[in-house]
Amino acid sequence: MTYFRFELLHTSKKSRARVGKIHTPHGVIDTPNFVAVGTNGTLKALDNDMVQKIGLQLMFCNTYHLMLQPGTEVVRQAGGLHRFIHRDMPIITDSGGFQVFSLAYGSVANELKSKGIKKTDGMVLKISEDGVLFRSYRDGSKMLLTPETSIQAQKDLGADIIIPFDELPPYHIEKKLLIESLERTHRWEERSLKEHLKDPQQQAMYAVVHGGVDVELRAKSCSFLSKLPFDGFAIGGSLGKTKHELFELLDHTVVQLDASKPNHLLGIGDLESIEQSIPKGIDTFDSSYPTRAARHGVAITSQGPLNLTKGEYRNQFRPIDATCSCPTCANFTLAYIHHLFKAKEMTALTLASVHNLHQMVEIMKAYRQKILQDQI
Amino acid sequence: MTYFRFELLHTSKKSRARVGKIHTPHGVIDTPNFVAVGTNGTLKALDNDMVQKIGLQLMFCNTYHLMLQPGTEVVRQAGGLHRFIHRDMPIITDSGGFQVFSLAYGSVANELKSKGIKKTDGMVLKISEDGVLFRSYRDGSKMLLTPETSIQAQKDLGADIIIPFDELPPYHIEKKLLIESLERTHRWEERSLKEHLKDPQQQAMYAVVHGGVDVELRAKSCSFLSKLPFDGFAIGGSLGKTKHELFELLDHTVVQLDASKPNHLLGIGDLESIEQSIPKGIDTFDSSYPTRAARHGVAITSQGPLNLTKGEYRNQFRPIDATCSCPTCANFTLAYIHHLFKAKEMTALTLASVHNLHQMVEIMKAYRQKILQDQI
Repeated sequence: MTYFRFELLHTSKKSRARVGKIHTPHGVIDTPNFVAVGTNGTLKALDNDMVQKIGLQLMFCNTYHLMLQPGTEVVRQAGGLHRFIHRDMPIITDSGGFQVFSLAYGSVANELKSKGIKKTDGMVLKISEDGVLFRSYRDGSKMLLTPETSIQAQKDLGADIIIPFDELPPYHIEKKLLIESLERTHRWEERSLKEHLKDPQQQAMYAVVHGGVDVELRAKSCSFLSKLPFDGFAIGGSLGKTKHELFELLDHTVVQLDASKPNHLLGIGDLESIEQSIPKGIDTFDSSYPTRAARHGVAITSQGPLNLTKGEYRNQFRPIDATCSCPTCANFTLAYIHHLFKAKEMTALTLASVHNLHQMVEIMKAYRQKILQDQI
Repeated sequence: MTYFRFELLHTSKKSRARVGKIHTPHGVIDTPNFVAVGTNGTLKALDNDMVQKIGLQLMFCNTYHLMLQPGTEVVRQAGGLHRFIHRDMPIITDSGGFQVFSLAYGSVANELKSKGIKKTDGMVLKISEDGVLFRSYRDGSKMLLTPETSIQAQKDLGADIIIPFDELPPYHIEKKLLIESLERTHRWEERSLKEHLKDPQQQAMYAVVHGGVDVELRAKSCSFLSKLPFDGFAIGGSLGKTKHELFELLDHTVVQLDASKPNHLLGIGDLESIEQSIPKGIDTFDSSYPTRAARHGVAITSQGPLNLTKGEYRNQFRPIDATCSCPTCANFTLAYIHHLFKAKEMTALTLASVHNLHQMVEIMKAYRQKILQDQI
């Protein structure tokens, strides 16, 4: 395959941290890198023109959401997701499995907080070997998500990297049931890969490694998936209740994967997790953390998080971060952004999001430098 | 005064429509022109960098809102509103009178719709010859707005054009009370002008013409205010219950004002009113119509208003308006913007606002051309 290639440039002498380039039909992703989440085909409070200017090389879109609105058929008619959303840099889509199983079992976050399922989340009607039948929360229509329909949807979307359909078992699950889930997930991933390879359409597919927090099952998953011609790996499933569990899990898992392929950590991209996971060999991280934090008034700075809504900033006529070169810091003061938050102006959310995403780009650039110098 | 000058370039042979240039310390305003409303120092869903790029030459900020948040003292410390909000093109501020009397009498819109005062609006404690004592809806503190404090606040803000403190009487009012209100407003405007001229600070001040829908009182107001050294006129007060009343009122009023000074129509800037008011000699219009319409999914196009949320646009892979050169139309399709509205993404509001404001800039440019050719 010439349209997708992982070029490993350097592995640290100090850890499993590595620097590479993922070549895709829509350009290069320098790794390690942060992946911005644009669920509905946009980052919240930003437009894709700005996202490209900020330099975010990979954007994550959610198949489940796009299936329900506008429908993958509309995106196909538009000529694919890149054209539909006006982005000519790489895109990755997931399978919809995560969202649809959150309907059935509750989201991971809610489960860990012992919260229930939100009423607005829709409804799962049937889970079988074939796939999942569920009701759309948008119009009440029945929809079937199977390995084949998920991949067909992702073919319509046409992202550079796609994900096989998998089951997301809950964190609290008996080992017997976890084994059954893992085996079914493996069958589903194999079916997904088969469906994908009928017409690769210049897309790459990452396997999703499962097994919950069970070291033995993770090993089994690595072993099974490594035998199939996937283009990379995504670490998914339940990733533990604490960061400690996550980091331990990564220690056991990443070493068992083919080092010549890229590794993605699904749905985790807070600063601490990135710092701890890079030395374990993770190449890409997707998370809505920087944009969500921005919308809650928290700016990422070289001095740590800064709460933009704090009263002490009302007359700080300096940028959020004096060392930052983002458009927000170039043009607007901390005092003004503080004021916009206090006045409940949407503009505040945009300016803070631009800043936080620019910070992520710079933070990942700095990690790559450090790895090249074997400092990590 | 060299820092403020109205240059009259052409008066139509067909009507009182005219083309001019208002020269201010922060640049030129070509007239007739549309004035964007950025109540809290930003246009909703946009940043001031984008607003300048769109080419909106004059921005309207509200003193009442800025007094309460962040406080005019903070803006003064920042070096004035231009620096605080990052705008180096002209700004106009109002006196706060409109808002504070809306608390006392209810807003014009609510009065005409027979609605009451919103609970969040705060509370007027006392109206006297001195001014208005009211309670801040933000922190409950007592604040005094008088001609002098309003002008001092506007000196702190440092806009290019400022407005004297006036009373906004309700539409439904006995003539005797309207006369009393008009006389007090005239005394207040005179006090405002006196306060302003103590230290002009390179600011211009427009008189506010009052008199409600009473032709005789409007004439009296024009006569009184014309004798004072104001730099321009703003048509304010109750402007009638219907557009017909407004247009009739303008017919009687504008002719009585010094043609060598600019005329602003306060708070009215929908497309029909602009079209009808330009031939009557109005030079500038402020209104939140284009941005509010955008946030409600209505795009201004050369073919008339277009409801972006309509289902028929889900697969219209063309710009909102094929003749439009705005950043939204250059980059994004109608189908995508429709999708963003359906998915309740804030980005939709930004993209639609950019488009509508660009349209206003183009519409006003076209009016100026037509007037120069005596077609209006």
